[in-house]
Amino acid sequence: MTVEPKGRVSAVDAKSFAQLIAFAPFAFHASIALRDTGILACLDEAGRDGLTLAEIAGATGLSEYSVSVLVDIGRDLGIVEETPAGFALGTVGHFLLHDEMTRVNMDFTRDLAYRALPHLEASVRSQRPAGLATLGPWETIYEGLASLPEPARSSWLRFDHFHSDRAFHHLLPLVFASSPRHIMDVGANTGRWALKCLAHDPDVRLSLVDLPAQLDLARRSIEHAGWSDRVRYHPANLLEQGAWLPEGADVIWMSQFLDCFSESEVARILQAAVAAMDSSTRLYIVELFPDRQRFEAARFSLNATSLYFTCIANGNSRMYPYRAFRGLVEDAGLQVTLEKDLAPSGHTVLQCRTATS
Amino acid sequence: MTVEPKGRVSAVDAKSFAQLIAFAPFAFHASIALRDTGILACLDEAGRDGLTLAEIAGATGLSEYSVSVLVDIGRDLGIVEETPAGFALGTVGHFLLHDEMTRVNMDFTRDLAYRALPHLEASVRSQRPAGLATLGPWETIYEGLASLPEPARSSWLRFDHFHSDRAFHHLLPLVFASSPRHIMDVGANTGRWALKCLAHDPDVRLSLVDLPAQLDLARRSIEHAGWSDRVRYHPANLLEQGAWLPEGADVIWMSQFLDCFSESEVARILQAAVAAMDSSTRLYIVELFPDRQRFEAARFSLNATSLYFTCIANGNSRMYPYRAFRGLVEDAGLQVTLEKDLAPSGHTVLQCRTATS
Repeated sequence: MTVEPKGRVSAVDAKSFAQLIAFAPFAFHASIALRDTGILACLDEAGRDGLTLAEIAGATGLSEYSVSVLVDIGRDLGIVEETPAGFALGTVGHFLLHDEMTRVNMDFTRDLAYRALPHLEASVRSQRPAGLATLGPWETIYEGLASLPEPARSSWLRFDHFHSDRAFHHLLPLVFASSPRHIMDVGANTGRWALKCLAHDPDVRLSLVDLPAQLDLARRSIEHAGWSDRVRYHPANLLEQGAWLPEGADVIWMSQFLDCFSESEVARILQAAVAAMDSSTRLYIVELFPDRQRFEAARFSLNATSLYFTCIANGNSRMYPYRAFRGLVEDAGLQVTLEKDLAPSGHTVLQCRTATS
Repeated sequence: MTVEPKGRVSAVDAKSFAQLIAFAPFAFHASIALRDTGILACLDEAGRDGLTLAEIAGATGLSEYSVSVLVDIGRDLGIVEETPAGFALGTVGHFLLHDEMTRVNMDFTRDLAYRALPHLEASVRSQRPAGLATLGPWETIYEGLASLPEPARSSWLRFDHFHSDRAFHHLLPLVFASSPRHIMDVGANTGRWALKCLAHDPDVRLSLVDLPAQLDLARRSIEHAGWSDRVRYHPANLLEQGAWLPEGADVIWMSQFLDCFSESEVARILQAAVAAMDSSTRLYIVELFPDRQRFEAARFSLNATSLYFTCIANGNSRMYPYRAFRGLVEDAGLQVTLEKDLAPSGHTVLQCRTATS
């Protein structure tokens, strides 16, 4: 029942798991249908005794036939359980129904990734995000974020925010322990971390760096909050020849930013950061590393997210393994002065200084 | 690692399995890409020591980046295994590469079902095969089989034939034990079972019943084999008012036919069969019943196949559970005189006579 077969598995188990893969899109859409037709909700309400097919049909307005095909595969997947009376909510079904992370991941897969994923093979062959054409006429998803069609846009934003926001309350005390006066948020995205910082400390100033379109979204949020006088904006594409970062920040912040770039691009961005740092500047890098996760499912989810980068986002970046990433940091002339895994969100924060400091 | 969580599973395991479902389409296409880019084949050749990322890249012409994103999720799924040197073929990967059933199921899912499955929810709400529109402008898939676009058509045929053909060599001696002179094959499909019978016994005659378009395919195969003088054709839609079956056969044969109909339609077809039977006629029904499978994966595969009927084929049929199906047989006035499960194909054959005989 775990994601990964442990050690040497039997041939029967492996052949069984191969069928789960072979019919995986059936399992996916059956799960969506069980959730979105209200079957799981009515089973949840009914409690341990469960409901008969006829009762589920009555509660959802579906035919008994429709209920039967969904609950039968749902039972194979642990989403529902058989009871003497009929069917009850299973443990996996509980998470499909109530767990925010599961819902966010599932909607992201359905609304943003599903139609694009058949282009994964073309993407790995070309190292271009061949699936992106199913969403819009862009070279990378970053150019298109502001104009993504619905429901892809909302599901992308919920996915993006969910997997960053839940680390914020662990990160704020860590960053503000040294009372920084000026934080440069590189890859400020829609400005959510910046708003947290501005709210946390009324004296801190922020510089936000991102692509112009992204920065417009951030600017709007910050104007709306009434904090414009404490924020500067540096629209920049750090991949362009001669791109640079302003000097003078106490803290340079890169949260779930570097995973949007290829290894050689990460190296160039880190060099730009080093050039903007002096001996007192702290660079914080926050990432989700597949090889630092406690749970197999978390590692699997991150490795799936890498395929989103491959097939949809930009064709050449990924959720980096810690070991490879740490090498890039050191090669840039940075010294990791603090390293902390944040449970349960799975993020790792690296505090770095220039190696000569 | 099995398809179904056993009994009460821990919350961690269930949440983990929920992520496998949430990212299932990623797992599916990563598996396809691992297979079809040649990564699995080169690992298979390399043996237990495995290959480094650079060696896999060299062997497949992919970049190391592309190889890395695929093998990392492949490792989570047991498709590849980590070795001291790099990566080797995992047990699940062995089946993706070498097992005919796994390949047939996977290609069916990719080529026929994938684009249709997002319409599953609409299908269960309407009891119409809402996904079929992604393949062609038909009411049911049976009208469109002869003109399905490629590669959907070839993958459908391979799926259909694989899951029926492998029972044939068990079924032939069973049916011919009573030396029938005249077999009526109801739902003759493309004629493969008829050809087996004609080859098995040079004296047997066959009557083939199916929709006109299907029967044309069967007729072509039989003409090609030179057996036209031993075969009669009865084009018929058994759902039409007043439809009937010719009398006089020693054996009426319905193999993986009744799963194409709703419960009330099955009842009507069985009544038509009873009307064509006398006290010596044997009716053989061959089906794959989810609740008679020895392996969880087989049950899961059949329950997934039911969703193909729901979403793509006709909107109202399924792989019936044995218990429900047996009731339909008895309600039609039939007596089950022999019942046999065929391992390892998973088929069950029911020999029936009229209850009054």
